[in-house]
Amino acid sequence: MTASATGRGPVLVVSAHAADFVWRAGGAVALSASRGQQVHVLCLTFGEKGESQGLWKQPGMTLERVKEARRDEASRAAKVLGAEIEFLDVGDYPLRATDALYDSVTATIRRINPATIITHPVKDPYNLDHSLTHEIVLRSRMVAQAAGHDRSSQPIGATQVLQFEPHQPEQCDFVPNLLLDISEVFERKVEAMRIMGAQGHLVAYYTDLGVRRGVQAVRNGGPRSITHAEAFQRVFPVVGSELL
Amino acid sequence: MTASATGRGPVLVVSAHAADFVWRAGGAVALSASRGQQVHVLCLTFGEKGESQGLWKQPGMTLERVKEARRDEASRAAKVLGAEIEFLDVGDYPLRATDALYDSVTATIRRINPATIITHPVKDPYNLDHSLTHEIVLRSRMVAQAAGHDRSSQPIGATQVLQFEPHQPEQCDFVPNLLLDISEVFERKVEAMRIMGAQGHLVAYYTDLGVRRGVQAVRNGGPRSITHAEAFQRVFPVVGSELL
Amino acid sequence: MTASATGRGPVLVVSAHAADFVWRAGGAVALSASRGQQVHVLCLTFGEKGESQGLWKQPGMTLERVKEARRDEASRAAKVLGAEIEFLDVGDYPLRATDALYDSVTATIRRINPATIITHPVKDPYNLDHSLTHEIVLRSRMVAQAAGHDRSSQPIGATQVLQFEPHQPEQCDFVPNLLLDISEVFERKVEAMRIMGAQGHLVAYYTDLGVRRGVQAVRNGGPRSITHAEAFQRVFPVVGSELL
Amino acid sequence: MTASATGRGPVLVVSAHAADFVWRAGGAVALSASRGQQVHVLCLTFGEKGESQGLWKQPGMTLERVKEARRDEASRAAKVLGAEIEFLDVGDYPLRATDALYDSVTATIRRINPATIITHPVKDPYNLDHSLTHEIVLRSRMVAQAAGHDRSSQPIGATQVLQFEPHQPEQCDFVPNLLLDISEVFERKVEAMRIMGAQGHLVAYYTDLGVRRGVQAVRNGGPRSITHAEAFQRVFPVVGSELL
Amino acid sequence: MTASATGRGPVLVVSAHAADFVWRAGGAVALSASRGQQVHVLCLTFGEKGESQGLWKQPGMTLERVKEARRDEASRAAKVLGAEIEFLDVGDYPLRATDALYDSVTATIRRINPATIITHPVKDPYNLDHSLTHEIVLRSRMVAQAAGHDRSSQPIGATQVLQFEPHQPEQCDFVPNLLLDISEVFERKVEAMRIMGAQGHLVAYYTDLGVRRGVQAVRNGGPRSITHAEAFQRVFPVVGSELL
Amino acid sequence: MTASATGRGPVLVVSAHAADFVWRAGGAVALSASRGQQVHVLCLTFGEKGESQGLWKQPGMTLERVKEARRDEASRAAKVLGAEIEFLDVGDYPLRATDALYDSVTATIRRINPATIITHPVKDPYNLDHSLTHEIVLRSRMVAQAAGHDRSSQPIGATQVLQFEPHQPEQCDFVPNLLLDISEVFERKVEAMRIMGAQGHLVAYYTDLGVRRGVQAVRNGGPRSITHAEAFQRVFPVVGSELL
Repeated sequence: MTASATGRGPVLVVSAHAADFVWRAGGAVALSASRGQQVHVLCLTFGEKGESQGLWKQPGMTLERVKEARRDEASRAAKVLGAEIEFLDVGDYPLRATDALYDSVTATIRRINPATIITHPVKDPYNLDHSLTHEIVLRSRMVAQAAGHDRSSQPIGATQVLQFEPHQPEQCDFVPNLLLDISEVFERKVEAMRIMGAQGHLVAYYTDLGVRRGVQAVRNGGPRSITHAEAFQRVFPVVGSELL
Repeated sequence: MTASATGRGPVLVVSAHAADFVWRAGGAVALSASRGQQVHVLCLTFGEKGESQGLWKQPGMTLERVKEARRDEASRAAKVLGAEIEFLDVGDYPLRATDALYDSVTATIRRINPATIITHPVKDPYNLDHSLTHEIVLRSRMVAQAAGHDRSSQPIGATQVLQFEPHQPEQCDFVPNLLLDISEVFERKVEAMRIMGAQGHLVAYYTDLGVRRGVQAVRNGGPRSITHAEAFQRVFPVVGSELL
Repeated sequence: MTASATGRGPVLVVSAHAADFVWRAGGAVALSASRGQQVHVLCLTFGEKGESQGLWKQPGMTLERVKEARRDEASRAAKVLGAEIEFLDVGDYPLRATDALYDSVTATIRRINPATIITHPVKDPYNLDHSLTHEIVLRSRMVAQAAGHDRSSQPIGATQVLQFEPHQPEQCDFVPNLLLDISEVFERKVEAMRIMGAQGHLVAYYTDLGVRRGVQAVRNGGPRSITHAEAFQRVFPVVGSELL
Repeated sequence: MTASATGRGPVLVVSAHAADFVWRAGGAVALSASRGQQVHVLCLTFGEKGESQGLWKQPGMTLERVKEARRDEASRAAKVLGAEIEFLDVGDYPLRATDALYDSVTATIRRINPATIITHPVKDPYNLDHSLTHEIVLRSRMVAQAAGHDRSSQPIGATQVLQFEPHQPEQCDFVPNLLLDISEVFERKVEAMRIMGAQGHLVAYYTDLGVRRGVQAVRNGGPRSITHAEAFQRVFPVVGSELL
Repeated sequence: MTASATGRGPVLVVSAHAADFVWRAGGAVALSASRGQQVHVLCLTFGEKGESQGLWKQPGMTLERVKEARRDEASRAAKVLGAEIEFLDVGDYPLRATDALYDSVTATIRRINPATIITHPVKDPYNLDHSLTHEIVLRSRMVAQAAGHDRSSQPIGATQVLQFEPHQPEQCDFVPNLLLDISEVFERKVEAMRIMGAQGHLVAYYTDLGVRRGVQAVRNGGPRSITHAEAFQRVFPVVGSELL
Repeated sequence: MTASATGRGPVLVVSAHAADFVWRAGGAVALSASRGQQVHVLCLTFGEKGESQGLWKQPGMTLERVKEARRDEASRAAKVLGAEIEFLDVGDYPLRATDALYDSVTATIRRINPATIITHPVKDPYNLDHSLTHEIVLRSRMVAQAAGHDRSSQPIGATQVLQFEPHQPEQCDFVPNLLLDISEVFERKVEAMRIMGAQGHLVAYYTDLGVRRGVQAVRNGGPRSITHAEAFQRVFPVVGSELL
C-alpha cells in the first residue's frame, strides 16, 4: 500500500491567513507530525489586516510590525505542532489571485508532493479570502497534475483535498464527512492556539469545538475514548478497499 | 481497534427486491465475504411483480412461480458471493411500510449487529420501493439503538449506512464518496449477475459500470491496478484517525 | 415517431383538490385538448375542507353541499378546457395515502396510458396534500409499469411527469424547465378560472402569473408573439433528437 | 400591530420526545414566558424507549416507570421555564403517524392558536421520530387552517414554524436564519436542563452550544452583550416592514 | 437598541446598473427614506450597453448620450424615492472587478457605515454583472471590517446583506426569506419606475410583481392590509430577541 | 417556426481544450451537421499542457509540437464530425480569463449567431479550466446580447446553453435533463474519437458511456431503437408548445 493510500505521506496545509491552520487543522497537523509525516504549512498571507485586531489595538502599530508579530506567532505554533511553515506574504483583505500566486502554490504542491492537501472550504460568505484560497488550491492542484507544466519537476497524482471547518459551518454549506480523532494531540493544539495572541478570544471557542466534534465522533460510532475531534469535508471520493 | 472501526465486522445488506444487492453491491458482498466477514442479505421482497419481466413473458406464469424462481436465483447468487440470505416476502410494487416490517428489519439488525449496513439511496423517483427501503433502514436502525426497545436483545451502536448506486445516479442525487476496489472479486460478481436470469439484460450494463467506476477510482488517486469498483455514498461521517 | 415522443398522446392530470388543475395547468389542458388529445383530469378530492373558503362563508353550508358545488364547478371548468374529469372523493385536509387510493390511481394510469402525466411538485411546505399527491403519482406510475401487476391490463412505459407550478414556487424548490406557450388558449383558461367561484380571489393572481411566465418565455428565447405561458418542471430527463 | 406580527402571541412547541424542547428551545421558551406569553409544550412521546438510557441502566426498570420519571422531569423543566406541558404518550422509537395523532395535534394547534410554532427540522437521518414530527406539524397546521375542518373551532392563520437545532446540524441540512438572544434567561435554561436526569450527559454539550451560538450572534452583528443564543431556521418567509 | 438592531440606520444599495435598484428595491428605498433613514445608492455602471435598449433604438445614439440619459433618469428616480445616488461608471457588459473598483466600494461602505446593505443575489446565469456585483459587495464588506485596512477610517460591524429579487428568481436559486411590506410607498415606486424610460416595458412587470409579493405576504401571515411587497433573501442569519 | 425554436440553426461548441468537444459532444455535433446545420467548434486552448499526456511521453517533445499535434487531431476529428473548428490558443492549465478572451468569444458568438451553444458544466472540481469556460460562455453570451456592445454587429437573442457531460458527473452536480439520441451517428463519433491519439485511453470509456446513456434513454421513454445517447443539462428553461 502506498503512502497515498494510507494518507500517511506528506501533508500540505494551505492557509489563507497565518493563523487559520492552527484553529481549524491544528489537530490534524499535530497528529500527522506525531507519526513522522512531513507537514508543510503554506500561509498565503499573515492575516495582517483582517485577522490581527488584537495587535491593531496597540498604540503605534504598523503593518510591518503586525506582519512580524504574526510571522513569529505562526512560526512558533507550527513548531509546537511539528510542522514546517512558509509565508507568501501576498497581502490579505482582500487576497488577490495573481498568476504569480498560482505559480507559487503550484510549485509548492509539486515540491511537497503531498498525500493530502488541507485547506479552506469552497464557500464562506463572511470571508472571501477563504473561498478564494480554496479555488487557488484546486486550480493549482490541477496544474500540478499536468504533464506539460514545468517539465523540470514531476506531475503529482490525484491528491485528496480536505476542507477544514469554517467559523460558522452551516452558513458555508460545510457538511463534515470525516471526524478526525485528535484526542491524543489535543494538548498540543491548545498549546499552539495559545501562542496566537492576536486572536486570543478564539482559544476557548475552538477548545469547545474540539469537545463538540469529539462528542459527535462518539455519536457516529467512534470509540468512547475519543475526547476531541476535528471535522473535515473531503472534496473527492475516497478510494479504498474497506467498507467504512 | 474494534471490528466496527475497521469496517470488518458483519455486513448487513437490505435489498428492496431480490436482485438489487447483486447488481449494486455484489462486489462489496463478495469482498467482505472473502475476508471472512459474515454477510447477511435481507430481501424485503422478491421483486416478483416489478423486476421479473423476463419471467412474466413466459406462458402460464404465476406469482408463486415467479417468486420461487427469484428466490432460487437470489439464493444461488448470494451463495456465489459468500453471503447468507433471508427473504421477508412482504410484496413489491408497491412495497408497504407496515409496523410488522419495521419490527422484522429492526430484529434482524439487532441479531446481526452489523459493522456496516448497505442499502438503497434516499431518493429514487423511478422506484419508490427503493427510497422507502432506505427510510425503513434508517428508522429500524434508530429503533435498534434504543435502550428501551425489546429488552431481550442488545442495542446496537451507531452503525454506518452505505447507500449503493441506483440505476440512474444523477437523477437520484447520488454522489459517491467511496469508490470500493472490487477488482479481486469482480469475476465472482459477474458469476452472480449471470444467475439473475429474470433480468439478464442488466449484466452488461453493470459490468460496464464496474469498469467505469474502476477508471474513476484510479482517477481519484487509487492504484492503477484497480480494474473494477463499486460506488457508495455514506449517510454518516466517517470517524477515524487517518487523513484520508 | 410515436405519440409519446411527440407528447401528443393522452394527458393525465392528477389534481389533489378539485381546482388545482385549473389554476396551474388549465392552459396545458386546453392546449392539448385543442389539438385533439384526450385529457383526463383525476381529482383525488374536492378540496372541500381546505380550498373552499368562499363556500364555507355561506350560512348553513354543509360538507356535502360544498362537495357538490365543487364537483359542479370543476366539471364545468374541465368541459370548458376540453377535458374529461373524474373525482375520487377520498377526503382532503389531510389527504390520506391508502392502499385503495394507490390502486385507484394506478388503475387510472393504466387505463388512460398517458403520454404525459401532470401533477403537483415534490415539495410544498404550505400544503402537504400537494406533496403527497406527487408521491402517490410517482408510486402509482411505478406500479403501473410493473409486468406482474394486474395481469388483466397492460403495463405502461416510462411516462414523463410534469410538475405544475405551486402557489409560492421558490418556497417549494420549484425551478421551471419548461415554459409552455399557452397564448392561443389563454382566453379559455380565464373562462375556466372564472367558473371556480369558491376561490374567485385567485383569478387575477393566476392571470398575472400567465403574463409573467409569458414575458419570461420571450426572455428565454421564445417568439415575441407569446403573451401567456405556464411553467412546468419535468421529473425525468427528456429523450429526443433535437438540441433544444 | 397584532400579536402575531410581533411574535408575542402564544407559542406552541411540539417536541417528539419529552426532553427535546429543553435542550433545543429551552431559551426560547423561557424568554417568551418571561414576557408573559403563553407557552404550551406538546410532547408526542416521553422518549421512553429511545432517549432514557440513564433510566434503563437502573435495575428492574419498566416502561411505565421510565415514562413516569420522564413525565416528572419534563413537567418540572417546563415549570422552571414558565411553560405549560401536555403529553400525548403515543409511543416512541418509532413514533407512528396515525390519524388520531394528526387529529390531536391539529386540535391543540387550533386551541392554542399560536403566533409561533417551534418544532424539529425537516431532516434528521439519525432520528426519524424528529423528522416525522416536523411533517406532523406541517400537516396539522395545514388542516388547522382549513375553513371546512371541525366547524366547532376557528381556523388559524398562516403561523410561522421555527425549526430548533438538531444534535448534529450539518448532517440535517440545518442552516440557522435566526440567532435568538437568550442571555437573560440562560440560567433558567441551565436549571431546566439539570432536571433532565435521564440524559445528564447533554447538559455540558448544550451549555457549550449556547455559548457557541452566542459568539456567532455577536459575529453576525448582535450587541456584544449577548452571551448565549439559540439557533432556529424558519420554514416560511418573514413578513415585515423592517429591513432586517 | 442600536440603529443596526432596528435596521433603521443608513441603507446602502449597490446596483450593478443604473436602474436595478428601482425595479428591485425601490420600495425598500422609499420606505427607509420615508422614515428618515439615509439611503445611499451606489451604481457601479449606467447599464449603458446592456440595459438601455430603448435608447439604442434612437438614431445617432452614442455611448456618452446613453450614459447621460441613464444618469439623469436614475438620479431623478433616486430623488423621488428619497435617496442620494453615486455613479462609479466603470463600464457594463461586462462589469470588470478591478482593484480600483473594490477600493471604491469598500470606501463607500466605510463612509456610509450602513445598517443594511442591499444588492444583487449570488447567482444569475442570465446576467453575470449581477452575480459579480454580489461578490464585490461581500468582498468589500469583508475588507471594510478589517482593523488593518485604511487606518484613517473606521471598520464597520457585521452588516446584514439583503439580496433583492432577480428577474427570474427560480433560475437564480432565489428563495425569499423576507417579504417587505411596501404598500404605503408603492405609489412612489411606480413614479420612480416610470422615470426609467429606457426600460419602460418593465413597469407593468414589476408592478404586477409588487402585487404578487403582496398577496404572498398576506399568505405568509401578514395583515390583510398589505397590497404590495418586495422580496428579499438575507445572506446572514438575523440576530434578535423576537420569535419571528 | 424559427430556426431557434427547432434548435436547428447554427450550433456553437465552446471547448476548453482541443478534445473536449469530441468526447462529450461528438454525437451532438455529428447529428446536427448531418442535418445540414452549421456547427462551429471554438477551442480556447489545445489542452497542450494538461490533456496530452500521451504526447509528452514521447522523447524530445516540445510545447509547440504538442500544440501542432493537437491542432491536427482536433481538426481532423471536427472534419469527420462535419464541423468547422477554430483555435484561440490562449494557454491551458490554467486557462486565464482575460478581457481579450472574453472579447474573442463574444465576437464569435455574434458572428455565428447560434441557435444553441454547447459547453462545459458550471462546476468541475477536478478541472477548473472547464468551469471557467462555462463562466466565459455565459458572460460572453450576455455581452453578445447587449444592444450597446459593438454597434457594428448584431445582438443575439436568448440562446439556450447546453452543458455536456463531465468526466465524473456526480462530483460536478451534473444532472442530465436531455438524453440526445445519437444512435445514427455513433459510428462517426467513434471514428472521431479514434483520431484523438493523445488520449487514446478514453475511447473505450466514452464508447461505454454512449451505450450507458442509450440504455437510460430507453429507460426514460425513448424508443427501443436507441443504442447510444449523449447527456446534456440545459442552463435555461425550454420554451415550447409541446408537453414534453
